[in-house]
Amino acid sequence: MEDQVLLERRDARGVVTLTLNRPASFNALSGEMIAALQAALDRIKDDESVRVVVLAAEGKAFSAGHHLKEMIARPALDYYQQLFARCSRMMLSIQKLPVPVIARVQGLATAAGCQLVAQCDLAVASEDASFAVSGVNFGLFCATPSVPLLRNVGAKQAMEMLLTGEFISAAEAQARGLVNRAVAAAQLDAGVEQLVASILAKPRLALAMGKELFYRQREMGAEAAYQLASQTMAANMMEDCAQEGVAAFTQKRKPNWTS
Amino acid sequence: MEDQVLLERRDARGVVTLTLNRPASFNALSGEMIAALQAALDRIKDDESVRVVVLAAEGKAFSAGHHLKEMIARPALDYYQQLFARCSRMMLSIQKLPVPVIARVQGLATAAGCQLVAQCDLAVASEDASFAVSGVNFGLFCATPSVPLLRNVGAKQAMEMLLTGEFISAAEAQARGLVNRAVAAAQLDAGVEQLVASILAKPRLALAMGKELFYRQREMGAEAAYQLASQTMAANMMEDCAQEGVAAFTQKRKPNWTS
Amino acid sequence: MEDQVLLERRDARGVVTLTLNRPASFNALSGEMIAALQAALDRIKDDESVRVVVLAAEGKAFSAGHHLKEMIARPALDYYQQLFARCSRMMLSIQKLPVPVIARVQGLATAAGCQLVAQCDLAVASEDASFAVSGVNFGLFCATPSVPLLRNVGAKQAMEMLLTGEFISAAEAQARGLVNRAVAAAQLDAGVEQLVASILAKPRLALAMGKELFYRQREMGAEAAYQLASQTMAANMMEDCAQEGVAAFTQKRKPNWTS
Repeated sequence: MEDQVLLERRDARGVVTLTLNRPASFNALSGEMIAALQAALDRIKDDESVRVVVLAAEGKAFSAGHHLKEMIARPALDYYQQLFARCSRMMLSIQKLPVPVIARVQGLATAAGCQLVAQCDLAVASEDASFAVSGVNFGLFCATPSVPLLRNVGAKQAMEMLLTGEFISAAEAQARGLVNRAVAAAQLDAGVEQLVASILAKPRLALAMGKELFYRQREMGAEAAYQLASQTMAANMMEDCAQEGVAAFTQKRKPNWTS
Repeated sequence: MEDQVLLERRDARGVVTLTLNRPASFNALSGEMIAALQAALDRIKDDESVRVVVLAAEGKAFSAGHHLKEMIARPALDYYQQLFARCSRMMLSIQKLPVPVIARVQGLATAAGCQLVAQCDLAVASEDASFAVSGVNFGLFCATPSVPLLRNVGAKQAMEMLLTGEFISAAEAQARGLVNRAVAAAQLDAGVEQLVASILAKPRLALAMGKELFYRQREMGAEAAYQLASQTMAANMMEDCAQEGVAAFTQKRKPNWTS
Repeated sequence: MEDQVLLERRDARGVVTLTLNRPASFNALSGEMIAALQAALDRIKDDESVRVVVLAAEGKAFSAGHHLKEMIARPALDYYQQLFARCSRMMLSIQKLPVPVIARVQGLATAAGCQLVAQCDLAVASEDASFAVSGVNFGLFCATPSVPLLRNVGAKQAMEMLLTGEFISAAEAQARGLVNRAVAAAQLDAGVEQLVASILAKPRLALAMGKELFYRQREMGAEAAYQLASQTMAANMMEDCAQEGVAAFTQKRKPNWTS
């Protein structure tokens, strides 16, 4: 089982940990790895017992991005188009997932590996982690990584990373908004667990409604965004979780939630 | 008069201060409070003698957001839809106002209270202020607050606040762009006054043209944004305020403005 | 030759330096200066031997923005419309250029001078540089500068600069994302050269494909952005530069690029 490209573990609380498991190749996003991630995300999407996903990686690196040996062996446009289309579909599946996804990052996160971090809803990095969109170093501009990168960090900072391919530290990644927290290596699991525990204390449905709204309203003008957000909030307020949660709050007691 | 939910004061310079005046309920945005804010904003909109608005709050908290006791007492979809639609209309009225609106923030600003701060054009916070979009703690994702929050702070930082409901300090709010300045509590009025005085020194019309352009161009692609901005700037240049201001500048004298 | 409004120099590596050369008028963007910049950008656009552009300025100031004496002498709407339309076209030409443009900033960069910095892909500032969108001080809101400013820095920070006209330091400009680096005055050329050298080490075509994608995908929703980025990356991968670059990487050798 340890031979899988992706380890999928689940605890009793509904926390699913997806672990990239090709440490020898710095967890490159091979076609096989992309397919395994897509399959796992598809399973999670329809499983209401899942509450939160942690995206982790085995070994010294989080992920070095696309699998270059695999790519160079098949120089054909339709192959590359399918590869990047599948990878992009997998990345968007993270955004579409009804539960929060937290990246747990150690070591290098480069190119599509850096993109994975940017695409997650939240990210916690070890202070020894470093980040680059380095495809340009071998003549391949990190086009798809630029999509979530530019939606996380400032335009000039994103452009510098994309044009130079240079690394930034975990502390810089935090300051720029690419990760939420940079912690000591020994505190990486504790840092992730803190976010996990906070998320588990909230009703799954409210988070699902909110996450979907968040990414949809981001692409709208302010008027349309407010309209959709108002509808979402009214619908959320009619749900049992909010009726119980607000009632409990006004009665100064703990909410009695089932999920 | 001190019984009003909203105190409206005006000084000789055209500075209107709107003060949320329900300190006992942490200035909750009840239906009555939202209506009072809407009415005040509607009056200001058509009053050319108003130059700048300060949005302040009485008591220990800026605002704890929606009035939960009021909300839980009427569990009906159409009531919630109307409530959030009215609140969103009021928030957008701040953006549409022809004069700058400055939030003056002490204590807690949570949920729709944090949204009010995010929605204002500028914000000055006491260093003891703290900010959260905490509806998720009682099962109600802060959907409408996410609209201006995401337009002020980075995506991952906004997502963390929305999913965890946790507080950030005034210093963090400043670092992330949610407020312009965090100052010592004793300096809160001075901090606001500094911005007020700077705004009063500019012609009202130029600020009105600029504020409208700012929010409109933000929702456009770069080409369309430049087109609208060019037209705005040419129209502004034909106004007396710019003709006099630019002439004065080139003649090394103070401009002689009437408004 | 030193009489030109714009000095155009080129080194053997394909680095073009455009230097605003009206230090006595703080390099104001007169009609003549805008036309000279437009002509230079048009020439560079079609010259495949150019690899990177540095936008610099002679004298104590980078640029004080529009030429106010020239403007006040011709109070006619169609003249102002043409002036701002031409200036906006020139600014957009920087974005459309196939090679990266780096601003080299010393002294004041105000109004359209600050806009130039914001519009460049990258910017390096001397630590004594300062930035303002100060048109509002003479009754002319910096409408066109607000377009790239708001696409570089946070909304409240941009709004404060636009409403107050006040200066921020180079360190603040870096913290907010308006410039990439603030360096000691004596290190300004070295700071620029570091970015130039990094860019020269990459294939021109990959940077051109990437820069165009960057600004196009920024204006799209996430799905459309990923679709365009996937196509761009597949096309880039089929180019010689990526085939050679990726092959070299997998063979642990240096790529043999011709451009």
